[in-house]
Amino acid sequence: MSSFDFTSHSHRRFNPLTNSWVLCSPHRTKRPWQGKEDEPDTKQRPSYDPSCYLCPTNSRASAGLKNPDYKETYVFENDFPAVQQDQPVLAVASQDDFNPLLQTESIRGQCFVICFSPKHDKTLADMSETEILPVIQTWIDLYNDLQSKPHINHVQIFENKGEMMGCSNPHPHCQVWSTEDVPEEPAVELKNMQVYQEKHHRCMLCDYVETETKADQKAKAVAATTSSSSATPSTTPDGSRIVCENDSFMCVVPFWATWPFETLVLSKQHLARLSDATPAQRQDLANIIRRITCRYDNLFKCSFPYSMGIHQAPTNGNTDHEKLSHLHLHFYPPLLRSASVKKFLVGFELLGQAQRDITPEQAAKRLMDCSEVHYKSA
Amino acid sequence: MSSFDFTSHSHRRFNPLTNSWVLCSPHRTKRPWQGKEDEPDTKQRPSYDPSCYLCPTNSRASAGLKNPDYKETYVFENDFPAVQQDQPVLAVASQDDFNPLLQTESIRGQCFVICFSPKHDKTLADMSETEILPVIQTWIDLYNDLQSKPHINHVQIFENKGEMMGCSNPHPHCQVWSTEDVPEEPAVELKNMQVYQEKHHRCMLCDYVETETKADQKAKAVAATTSSSSATPSTTPDGSRIVCENDSFMCVVPFWATWPFETLVLSKQHLARLSDATPAQRQDLANIIRRITCRYDNLFKCSFPYSMGIHQAPTNGNTDHEKLSHLHLHFYPPLLRSASVKKFLVGFELLGQAQRDITPEQAAKRLMDCSEVHYKSA
Ligand SMILES: [Zn+2]
Ligand SMILES: [Zn+2]
Repeated sequence: MSSFDFTSHSHRRFNPLTNSWVLCSPHRTKRPWQGKEDEPDTKQRPSYDPSCYLCPTNSRASAGLKNPDYKETYVFENDFPAVQQDQPVLAVASQDDFNPLLQTESIRGQCFVICFSPKHDKTLADMSETEILPVIQTWIDLYNDLQSKPHINHVQIFENKGEMMGCSNPHPHCQVWSTEDVPEEPAVELKNMQVYQEKHHRCMLCDYVETETKADQKAKAVAATTSSSSATPSTTPDGSRIVCENDSFMCVVPFWATWPFETLVLSKQHLARLSDATPAQRQDLANIIRRITCRYDNLFKCSFPYSMGIHQAPTNGNTDHEKLSHLHLHFYPPLLRSASVKKFLVGFELLGQAQRDITPEQAAKRLMDCSEVHYKSA
Repeated sequence: MSSFDFTSHSHRRFNPLTNSWVLCSPHRTKRPWQGKEDEPDTKQRPSYDPSCYLCPTNSRASAGLKNPDYKETYVFENDFPAVQQDQPVLAVASQDDFNPLLQTESIRGQCFVICFSPKHDKTLADMSETEILPVIQTWIDLYNDLQSKPHINHVQIFENKGEMMGCSNPHPHCQVWSTEDVPEEPAVELKNMQVYQEKHHRCMLCDYVETETKADQKAKAVAATTSSSSATPSTTPDGSRIVCENDSFMCVVPFWATWPFETLVLSKQHLARLSDATPAQRQDLANIIRRITCRYDNLFKCSFPYSMGIHQAPTNGNTDHEKLSHLHLHFYPPLLRSASVKKFLVGFELLGQAQRDITPEQAAKRLMDCSEVHYKSA
């Protein structure tokens, strides 16, 4: 039999952030698609929509509230928050009543909406770096405000873009859910980063930045020579996974990506949180956000749907957590092979293991080949 | 302030099977729905569809293959499998090459499709127990066949029902993915069941059957008296979570359910696998499957979408795993508040923590109130 080929043989890859495995079935990209196709989002929208509850001067969902005539970003408390600030404290079960199978805790918190721009038809993908910078500053200001509240121990900033992600309003905005607990995902990441730190005496994500830089250099060296690297079979997949980078940030399709075109934006320096970033680093983050979201839109020539989230230090005052935290952004996009074919997280994914078809290296190559000039203005 | 109320205050609940927390925001059920609505599946289908690649005597997706004129169930190998039986083995990285951030392993396996019935228009929800019994027998036979193969260490049986779950063909069928590894989800469950076993010297799911039986008895006792139980504030939510049961199986909305109407079917006896079930227990499983799927269809008067999967002992010959395994079925349905409003696992769910609005006790009550006679034949 021929030797193992990462582009045609099934394998699993380890996600060190979540301590879990992902199944990769690259030969399966050849299967015909018989499932549901969604309508791609290629709509042209007005820059002001009188019926949008996020546009300046319009009425909000809650009766009687009206948006100001804002010019850059606009922050308000979510009208139907998932967590509330004022609620009674739950009595703790006595030792006799405690059942390890019925564990529960009360959770207080506050939820916010941040409009990125007064323009209804903008998205991060077609905003300029100058327009994205105030969004980053607003993230920092809100995080700093919430950090001072004793019952807020974590601030989760996330954006759902597109109807496929359950987002009902195309007006550019994100949400911020701040909670009494450190939620599951960041808590698990911190735990695994701690285990890595104890074992290797290094920050996992600092090491990962270095690993991806080396893989990129190797891929470029191979491409520069005429001989192929396939002489000795590789024990890890060949190819770069860096989609784009600047002095402060790197955007990669992570080695362990679950979503077809999932990316991870990593701070190259060890920053615990956005507010630790220098003005130059904030500018670089605006740059990398513009470039990756623009490449996403260009990939299938549509407004590319995703869930994006920022992971940074919790606001619980835990100094171990602060040292371990390494600022990064996850982009989880559901599109699979075109603007209308979606990846479903179902069946084997829910009951067995996360699974992908196209390899992370192939996905990175597709994104590398996209322009950083938006298709609408090209 | 009034005392804590599990039906209106935010709390989180612990899932002992996955060792993770779920956020429950019951007050949020009042928010208006502005998102996408899907077309509910209320179509009337023919009992034979000449264009269906699963109907008896029809051509399959792969060129040249034809289905037999089967009368009960029909098993064949998936034409586009996620794992393959024949592929080269991946060389293991040398000590020098090993990078903890680039871990990968090759995975062999085999994938199958099982048609539940020759009738194109049937689903488990409107099949009789007599018709479901051969499906259970087919699951057992295939598991037993695969158990004898040395490179197959786990057999995952799962059903995706409905277009919402990415299922392209309404013909009643499930899939079986058998793999060299024990996939992430069952591996994590086994690990957490082992930790529980070591700590409490009992099987976690045997204990959970007992816990839910007691909660059900308490709820019935409270309902029988005129006084309310709200005099002393409870440290765990009141109410039964048992939707239906028989001598051998119990169907509950688990205390830690993520999906709005998620259910867990538990064997009341400690069975490691389906093939250990007596004929009476197999009959009881057919009974409980018919009853819960029928209640699901009746809930919103539609063909109710879900992903269902069976967790049982791996086929890796690990005697610890065999002792720990406790047969159970997970039903993960995406419908939220009607036949057309879907729950999206996005944003905070992907980046923070799983989150639900309606409480598990409220969901159980809704399902308890449904008939076990299918609405189409009522
Ligand atoms: Zn670092
Ligand atoms: Zn048990």
